[in-house]
Amino acid sequence: MAGEGLSYAAAGVDIEAYERVLERVKPLIAATHGEEVVRGVGPFAGLYALPGGGHLAASADGVGTKIKVAIAASSHQGIGVDIVNHCVNDIATAGARPVFFLDYFATGKLDPQVFTQVIEGITIACREAGCALLGGETAEMPGVYALGDYDLAGFIVGMVPPGLMRDPKEIRAGDLLIGLPSSGLHTNGFSLVRKVFEGVPLSRVYSELGRPLGEELLEPHRSYLQELGSIAWKGAAHITGGGIYGNLPRCLPEGLGARLGRRSWVEPSIFELVRRRGRIADDEMFGTFNMGLGMILVVDRDEVPRSAQVVGEVVAHKTSERVVIS
Amino acid sequence: MAGEGLSYAAAGVDIEAYERVLERVKPLIAATHGEEVVRGVGPFAGLYALPGGGHLAASADGVGTKIKVAIAASSHQGIGVDIVNHCVNDIATAGARPVFFLDYFATGKLDPQVFTQVIEGITIACREAGCALLGGETAEMPGVYALGDYDLAGFIVGMVPPGLMRDPKEIRAGDLLIGLPSSGLHTNGFSLVRKVFEGVPLSRVYSELGRPLGEELLEPHRSYLQELGSIAWKGAAHITGGGIYGNLPRCLPEGLGARLGRRSWVEPSIFELVRRRGRIADDEMFGTFNMGLGMILVVDRDEVPRSAQVVGEVVAHKTSERVVIS
Repeated sequence: MAGEGLSYAAAGVDIEAYERVLERVKPLIAATHGEEVVRGVGPFAGLYALPGGGHLAASADGVGTKIKVAIAASSHQGIGVDIVNHCVNDIATAGARPVFFLDYFATGKLDPQVFTQVIEGITIACREAGCALLGGETAEMPGVYALGDYDLAGFIVGMVPPGLMRDPKEIRAGDLLIGLPSSGLHTNGFSLVRKVFEGVPLSRVYSELGRPLGEELLEPHRSYLQELGSIAWKGAAHITGGGIYGNLPRCLPEGLGARLGRRSWVEPSIFELVRRRGRIADDEMFGTFNMGLGMILVVDRDEVPRSAQVVGEVVAHKTSERVVIS
Repeated sequence: MAGEGLSYAAAGVDIEAYERVLERVKPLIAATHGEEVVRGVGPFAGLYALPGGGHLAASADGVGTKIKVAIAASSHQGIGVDIVNHCVNDIATAGARPVFFLDYFATGKLDPQVFTQVIEGITIACREAGCALLGGETAEMPGVYALGDYDLAGFIVGMVPPGLMRDPKEIRAGDLLIGLPSSGLHTNGFSLVRKVFEGVPLSRVYSELGRPLGEELLEPHRSYLQELGSIAWKGAAHITGGGIYGNLPRCLPEGLGARLGRRSWVEPSIFELVRRRGRIADDEMFGTFNMGLGMILVVDRDEVPRSAQVVGEVVAHKTSERVVIS
């Protein structure tokens, strides 16, 4: 990487190494699956058939090292919103409406103010999503977490009513891609972002951002629940860790890829700032960040709402790259 | 505490401080609850009414600083078993059979061997519980977790068939308490235990344990799923953080307490060793550890199986202490 700018792997996060390990444990995981487990649908959530009809959708998520920015800024409510909305969006891609959420909060020494702010954020986002905060675990683990540090994970369960589950096989070349705008970085790529802004005070106001860096970085993850309920979509990709390159193919069936027009949406300024300061290659940017599109929907040409932001289309997958952005 | 031996609070874990904070956020949490959320039943799990009848039970758990012992011993499969069985037991107290589980694994830098061992343990315990490993989140968080450190949380969902939910109001003074033996410390009190054995090599064989200390400490958490399915119980307390004093009252209705006969069960040797080495007061021991009883069931006198280990009875709660062990 010498002299070549920053990358996510050089920032200490190696997604490919993880995927290699995952391949090794997949048979173990599959051996726990009975016929109630639905595979290949809603790749951002696990699906389980209910005996009385319909399905449960579930997802587990974390907020990554965005937590380090929240700690530095002493601002934790947004982190609570982040974890819920991240989970809500994951199961929404399977057509699920959230029913309940549980959290895992672990820290070295419980700070009542931090914990209260996080729970406030969680409950605000739960109420917005019509989702019960049904339980959680709070762990004091001196020796694992440094003083002031904490970690937060979330777990969500939703229901997909009978007949509302999408079948990815209905996606065809020629379907259009609709981009739903993100509110910023959401919760991904923060190990890289923190390297990019190393030594920069969070109070610094970059003119292109028009507000303090800390506020920009901590802007909470958007929920797409309402939009997904109002558009007739065939597939949905939640653009999280791995960026557009890593997540868009997950909602497409074998043999299909996507072509996106780079000028078809407005990239928020934070991404250009991160790119410039880190001298980060374009491939790395689109393979790490949402780049302004927090959710991408696959929609039949005849079903595209007039106000929708069309960012590309589904194409037959002939090239070596499944997603081409040009 | 000076000269007075060790306590859990002095070891860095303050359960009372946590309970004070929890009181403050309870109204926020309650505001997220619709009428589907069932309260006051199965206190170790959250309960959610399904539209078609029956209930979902859910729980989130961690394994605490037992993870530090696993890291020191380079032995992680048992930790995977621990997290699943902890969750399985929690929802079993609500009469639920597990249906799926998700994990959250966070580390500074993914170690493929550690991760694989943890997943092996998780899948072994999931298969035993008839539970699908439906998903999970794996997070690399350099800067939050030290090299070699990790944390693990688990989320479980189970189903309580219609008519099988217990009503705590059916518990009466005179009901008997049946103790189900633990396999050792399970996953609780490890911040204290690690202080007690500070500087002692995990390979050390204490004669009363008859095996290396590391093996004893890492013995996995037992699952009580089968036993709970074969006994007609009215209430069940999973003895985890907070020990017998903290957990047994949770399954009893207002106005009732419990009296346990201290010589009615055999305390495994590890507890006496911890007590002696740490010069820990009895109240602290029974308020931190399971003391050999991983699960305590409330059973009608007429329903006690012949082979059951009766350890006490339900009594009217007149004294200041709800649980008396003498």
